[in-house]
Amino acid sequence: MLFTTNNRLSVLFSVFALAFLSCISSIAQAETPPNIVVIFCDDMGWGDLGCFGNPTIRTPRLDQLAHEGQRWTQFYVAAPVCTPSRAALLTGRYPIRNGMTSAKRGVLFPDSGGGLPSAEITLAELLKQKNYATGIVGKWHLGHLPQYLPTTQGFDQYFGIPYSNDMDKTGGPGYKAEIVKDDSYYPETAHYNVPLMRNTEIIERPADQNTIVRRYTDEAIAFIKANQNRPFFLYLPHNLPHIPLFASPEFRGKSARGLYGDVVEEIDFNVGRIIDTLRELKLEKNTLVVFTSDNGPWLAFDTHGGSAGPLRAGKGTTFEGGQRVPTIFWWPEHISPSVQHGLGSTLDFMATFATLTGSQIPNDRKLDSYDLSSTLLRNEPSPRKEFFYWTNAELHAARLGPWKLHIKTREPVNYSKAVVPSKPELYHLEHDLSEKHNLADKHPEIVAQIMELMEAHKKDIEPHEDMLAIPLPKP
Amino acid sequence: MLFTTNNRLSVLFSVFALAFLSCISSIAQAETPPNIVVIFCDDMGWGDLGCFGNPTIRTPRLDQLAHEGQRWTQFYVAAPVCTPSRAALLTGRYPIRNGMTSAKRGVLFPDSGGGLPSAEITLAELLKQKNYATGIVGKWHLGHLPQYLPTTQGFDQYFGIPYSNDMDKTGGPGYKAEIVKDDSYYPETAHYNVPLMRNTEIIERPADQNTIVRRYTDEAIAFIKANQNRPFFLYLPHNLPHIPLFASPEFRGKSARGLYGDVVEEIDFNVGRIIDTLRELKLEKNTLVVFTSDNGPWLAFDTHGGSAGPLRAGKGTTFEGGQRVPTIFWWPEHISPSVQHGLGSTLDFMATFATLTGSQIPNDRKLDSYDLSSTLLRNEPSPRKEFFYWTNAELHAARLGPWKLHIKTREPVNYSKAVVPSKPELYHLEHDLSEKHNLADKHPEIVAQIMELMEAHKKDIEPHEDMLAIPLPKP
Repeated sequence: MLFTTNNRLSVLFSVFALAFLSCISSIAQAETPPNIVVIFCDDMGWGDLGCFGNPTIRTPRLDQLAHEGQRWTQFYVAAPVCTPSRAALLTGRYPIRNGMTSAKRGVLFPDSGGGLPSAEITLAELLKQKNYATGIVGKWHLGHLPQYLPTTQGFDQYFGIPYSNDMDKTGGPGYKAEIVKDDSYYPETAHYNVPLMRNTEIIERPADQNTIVRRYTDEAIAFIKANQNRPFFLYLPHNLPHIPLFASPEFRGKSARGLYGDVVEEIDFNVGRIIDTLRELKLEKNTLVVFTSDNGPWLAFDTHGGSAGPLRAGKGTTFEGGQRVPTIFWWPEHISPSVQHGLGSTLDFMATFATLTGSQIPNDRKLDSYDLSSTLLRNEPSPRKEFFYWTNAELHAARLGPWKLHIKTREPVNYSKAVVPSKPELYHLEHDLSEKHNLADKHPEIVAQIMELMEAHKKDIEPHEDMLAIPLPKP
Repeated sequence: MLFTTNNRLSVLFSVFALAFLSCISSIAQAETPPNIVVIFCDDMGWGDLGCFGNPTIRTPRLDQLAHEGQRWTQFYVAAPVCTPSRAALLTGRYPIRNGMTSAKRGVLFPDSGGGLPSAEITLAELLKQKNYATGIVGKWHLGHLPQYLPTTQGFDQYFGIPYSNDMDKTGGPGYKAEIVKDDSYYPETAHYNVPLMRNTEIIERPADQNTIVRRYTDEAIAFIKANQNRPFFLYLPHNLPHIPLFASPEFRGKSARGLYGDVVEEIDFNVGRIIDTLRELKLEKNTLVVFTSDNGPWLAFDTHGGSAGPLRAGKGTTFEGGQRVPTIFWWPEHISPSVQHGLGSTLDFMATFATLTGSQIPNDRKLDSYDLSSTLLRNEPSPRKEFFYWTNAELHAARLGPWKLHIKTREPVNYSKAVVPSKPELYHLEHDLSEKHNLADKHPEIVAQIMELMEAHKKDIEPHEDMLAIPLPKP
């Protein structure tokens, strides 16, 4: 299980190697580049879909996609909270490289004045090389001032709530207190004064969140129909199942899992509407659909939070439950159906989509993106062998092959502050699914190897100005 | 969610109601009764199959059966340890009714002199009404003296190890100490002097356990081939993945999950061989195949034990991880594919198989068996609404609809003795997958209702003489 020095060096990827791989793989690419749909949930846990072992939530549409496509069981987001996770997905870079992780604040808030730097190149900008139509429907959370909105980052159009659905509170009792009081609690949409935007304008405030999953899907379907004759990139980051939980009347009270299950089942149904639309338009064989989540379940909210299945802890922590997310890739006749146990990350969308579309990844900056196309198209082993767990602008853990070393951890449920363990914790994640058996004393050579890898990674990083700590400009 | 008094009475099933249902349902039954194959694993946890969310164990054959058949997510065994669980499966009765659970010993040991009373009617005896060929290949564990062997309980033939594969130790270091010392540990088959029997004769001792999964499957396939022209009942209780773990050379070191994964993957492959045989013989449309496990994972053995996924605790406890097991029903063109969230139990095999085969369940004794055939054949809601968690001849918990009340619990990993909680623990199992949020204070009316149900159930039980405490007769 040990990696040699050569292997260790090789996992410190370079832009050159990625560009080379991209060049080779693009030979196999079709003349018409595929449409790409990325459906991204908020706070959905690894264990919240039927096909990932949830015992009470029904997700027949996603289960079917998993059966026909690839279900990835070791797929990561680059941060255990929202804003940095989204920045990483869109840029293929750990958020420490673009200021989207902060020692001071976990995410952007309505009183934040920062956002994703305009110099960053997003997936939408990448795909503009090939004249893709680019649309985002849903939660942006990378800056809500005009200079940071999606239309400044390569997206032709935007419809959605620009940050988390629990922000802009207007009163009412605390959510946590309410839910433990009564299992049948249903929140008031008016308690959350979040704006709903079209492009750069606010069109509804507070947004009526009761029907937001359906309305996002309606917009997504309209975008697909409007662009059916050219390549399109649709990014659909749902605001749910982040708390406060809202469901359309026809889903409310329907799931055995309670309100959280109602929300996930409504999302599943609406994923089905997207797939049905692709089939109706005969686009399914030319459309890659990816489904995943921005981080693990928010366990502090009891049954209003999701489940990480057998994984340890949840959102806000660098345990597996915080950053390993339920992921499905689906593309009939192109993706070879299987369960993938190799490593992957939303960071890898950049290099992967570049290969699949014949685009060129940025070559003037460091990327943290592996090209997964050979795994998707030919079931070859994933090229990703390592992963770095950053949180609040600090590197807390790293994975190398099956091994994970924690040098800092957080309290699993209430993750308010970092805790330095008295000594490093080493887990064999593939044997020990729940990070229970610390093997640091048995394998000091692996501890040393991963420590060295983490040091090398940190040397490779030039931290950007903290964009999350910037306050709103004075009026 | 409350059940009315009428509903409560109705869940106290009666033999009359079952017989009536059985009579109605048998109208729909085919002229040639189906073959039945029950594959029963030992200590496999709820979360150990790919289709139940295991992230590293590959089980493509079982995943396919789950996709084509019914995957039951809330399916129970009637005890969290081996002997009583098996007694319940074969008789459709809680083991307190036939002496197969004991305050003194958890299971039968090589020095035990008791076994399943001959007056009990097993599934094999039930199916003899219809002239089924009846074979058992694997672990019996219901008495190893001549008067208790399978051939005295309706089985035409037996091949297997009559009790657990870790019994009859001949020396060597303790298994636990060994495995934590070295993750690459592989046990010595010679350290376990277990007999391999054919019918009533010992043919090999110690049994070579390295190839036992393959050899059991070879025997099972031979039985199917020999009986392909008449209805047959094959009961295939594997000795694995109970510790000590053994795998054939071609599976050893192959699973990302380590030795435990090797064993489960070998079982999966060999389930596939059974399915392939049924298809080759064109029997698949007339054969019901059921796959399940005898209890939850043995967590004390670290990575050599399995995983209960999101469920709490494991083997030996009445938490869900101890008694809820991964269960698949497969019968092409008869079972309608779905994920079933209704309750079911191995106790229900008796009434279900009776209906499916047109046999008559015993009417001279109390049964605890629900007929699940309408759920299997027509996706109707499961008739089972309650379940009682017995362990060591004591009733520790009960489930009614989504609610579960514990009046006693055990320490989750080292379950050596019962612990009476200071007050009852009430969980909503469908919202709260991991039995984390005790709602007893919020719902005293449900506590009272389940307490009443438990009292009524206990009044309905006439405990049998303790058969597990009987020592070997003096020579």
